[in-house]
Amino acid sequence: MGNDKKIEVVLAIDIGGSLTKIGLVSCDGQILDKKVFQTEAKRPFSDFLEKLRFEVKDIIQKNDTTLNILSIGVGAPNANPYTGQIESPPNLKWGKTTPIVKIFKDNFKLPVALANDANAAALGEMLFGAAIGMKNFVTLTLGTGLGSGIIVDGKLLIGEHGAAGEIGHVNVDPYGRMCNCGLQGCLETYASVTGIKRTVFELMAEMREDSPLRSLSFTEMTGVDISNAAVKNDKIALKAFELTGKILGSKMADTVAHLDIEAFILSGGLSKAGDILIHPVKQHMEQYLFGAYKGKVKVLLATATSSDAVLGPAALAWLTFKP
Amino acid sequence: MGNDKKIEVVLAIDIGGSLTKIGLVSCDGQILDKKVFQTEAKRPFSDFLEKLRFEVKDIIQKNDTTLNILSIGVGAPNANPYTGQIESPPNLKWGKTTPIVKIFKDNFKLPVALANDANAAALGEMLFGAAIGMKNFVTLTLGTGLGSGIIVDGKLLIGEHGAAGEIGHVNVDPYGRMCNCGLQGCLETYASVTGIKRTVFELMAEMREDSPLRSLSFTEMTGVDISNAAVKNDKIALKAFELTGKILGSKMADTVAHLDIEAFILSGGLSKAGDILIHPVKQHMEQYLFGAYKGKVKVLLATATSSDAVLGPAALAWLTFKP
Repeated sequence: MGNDKKIEVVLAIDIGGSLTKIGLVSCDGQILDKKVFQTEAKRPFSDFLEKLRFEVKDIIQKNDTTLNILSIGVGAPNANPYTGQIESPPNLKWGKTTPIVKIFKDNFKLPVALANDANAAALGEMLFGAAIGMKNFVTLTLGTGLGSGIIVDGKLLIGEHGAAGEIGHVNVDPYGRMCNCGLQGCLETYASVTGIKRTVFELMAEMREDSPLRSLSFTEMTGVDISNAAVKNDKIALKAFELTGKILGSKMADTVAHLDIEAFILSGGLSKAGDILIHPVKQHMEQYLFGAYKGKVKVLLATATSSDAVLGPAALAWLTFKP
Repeated sequence: MGNDKKIEVVLAIDIGGSLTKIGLVSCDGQILDKKVFQTEAKRPFSDFLEKLRFEVKDIIQKNDTTLNILSIGVGAPNANPYTGQIESPPNLKWGKTTPIVKIFKDNFKLPVALANDANAAALGEMLFGAAIGMKNFVTLTLGTGLGSGIIVDGKLLIGEHGAAGEIGHVNVDPYGRMCNCGLQGCLETYASVTGIKRTVFELMAEMREDSPLRSLSFTEMTGVDISNAAVKNDKIALKAFELTGKILGSKMADTVAHLDIEAFILSGGLSKAGDILIHPVKQHMEQYLFGAYKGKVKVLLATATSSDAVLGPAALAWLTFKP
């Protein structure tokens, strides 16, 4: 069977701190095959590469008769699109720099595009998800931390050094919470799964109300525990969402004052709470919005990348290497 | 003399709340002739247009044998490049919308480009000033208010509704100073000529030190009075610059976390204090910068647009209508 009859796809690779996902994705966002494996981020990069080579070879062989792979898109933490490297990732023990683009090109003999995972997610929403047809928007991934991707005039904002879109590290309070990045009071210490957990622990100290959350240790408690409690009208959980939404909403107003965007697209564990989060976010964002923007900025949930992370790097590959 | 031998210029028009400046500007930023007149912003637009027509006709006739005018660039407050209108300007009593592009095209029979004055200033610095060769930077005009212009990948960031770059209205303190825009705690209520004056008045209440500033009323005091006092080591003025620099510097770090820029270019009355302002600005910006940006962001003084405001709209015209 010739290449003419095969479906054209890209190979999308999402490298996460715990899991790596690979998928074969068509230009309309169909995931035609996929694999997931442990990144084992504490072992050397050579071990990861060996495993990746095995999985990629396997998925290619399985689909060789029906699919034609055009290029590779990679999303990874601390990825720099200018250098093609992953640079000083706190959660991957692979050394200071890993030249992903070069290594993947050499190994897989295909064009390779690399982006920060949160930036790739923005492209995924634009091509396949909640932001189809939009030209100016921001994605916020509210997970362990707060990742962001900025689309301006239909293009990913990359910045001077390849590191634009670190909205998780705007300052909420100079005397606020200690952040993993070494700064104090960063937005992600409040508006993320970890952030709301910290807020719940503050509230358990301040408030007197009983709550099922009081029976969980800091280590045990998950974002789902907090969402579930909020759904059942738990006062501490609801207050935590209110405070989180207030801080996040007010800072989103600052983002609009820079970028004049059409929408925010929220994803990640914290966004799964839906309206319990979105209601206070919208209310406080509106309150702080400059007049020219009032009533004009949507707050939506992600669709594509929240269902499968490979759709971010897949969009990157499709957009970078237009057939 | 034929057009071939004439020097090609654009007609630049900077409409301000008190003064309107027009100039004939060559592609290398030479101002070959200029005029300044009172905007008289409280009188109807038709009066302004009549005066502008007279001045434009005059400057064109004077230079008709040597200069060839290719296009018109207009910088104005609350200008929307998408609609070609000035929209609800607080300082011009011209009604809700004034369709500048249409009216100027009809009157002057030349292509017309319109931009927000602070955005035009960013183009002016890129083409003729401190940002020549830069592709990612932000200009901050610290005057009566705080205007800003954002350049991303060599292009002006305009946004979804034509209103990007309102950094003067990011929030410093939800319980802070009342802003003319109706919000509370906006950056421009601290980091502008008016802002530092408000800070001086707070400090005169808090501190016991004697100061020449104590003999001036709020109405009388100018930014120059505060700068002059600071140069002479006046404790209140120096403290006011320190506090202003701290607030501005910390918010500039937030801007970098969005845009990953190479430099800030400062202009306007407050910037005339030079190092007295820039030293605390740099120090506090650096302190709040996310790791990936530390040591990488310059803080410079504007050159072109601080010497003549028409260089902003001139750059707009040259960039919009490339010969």
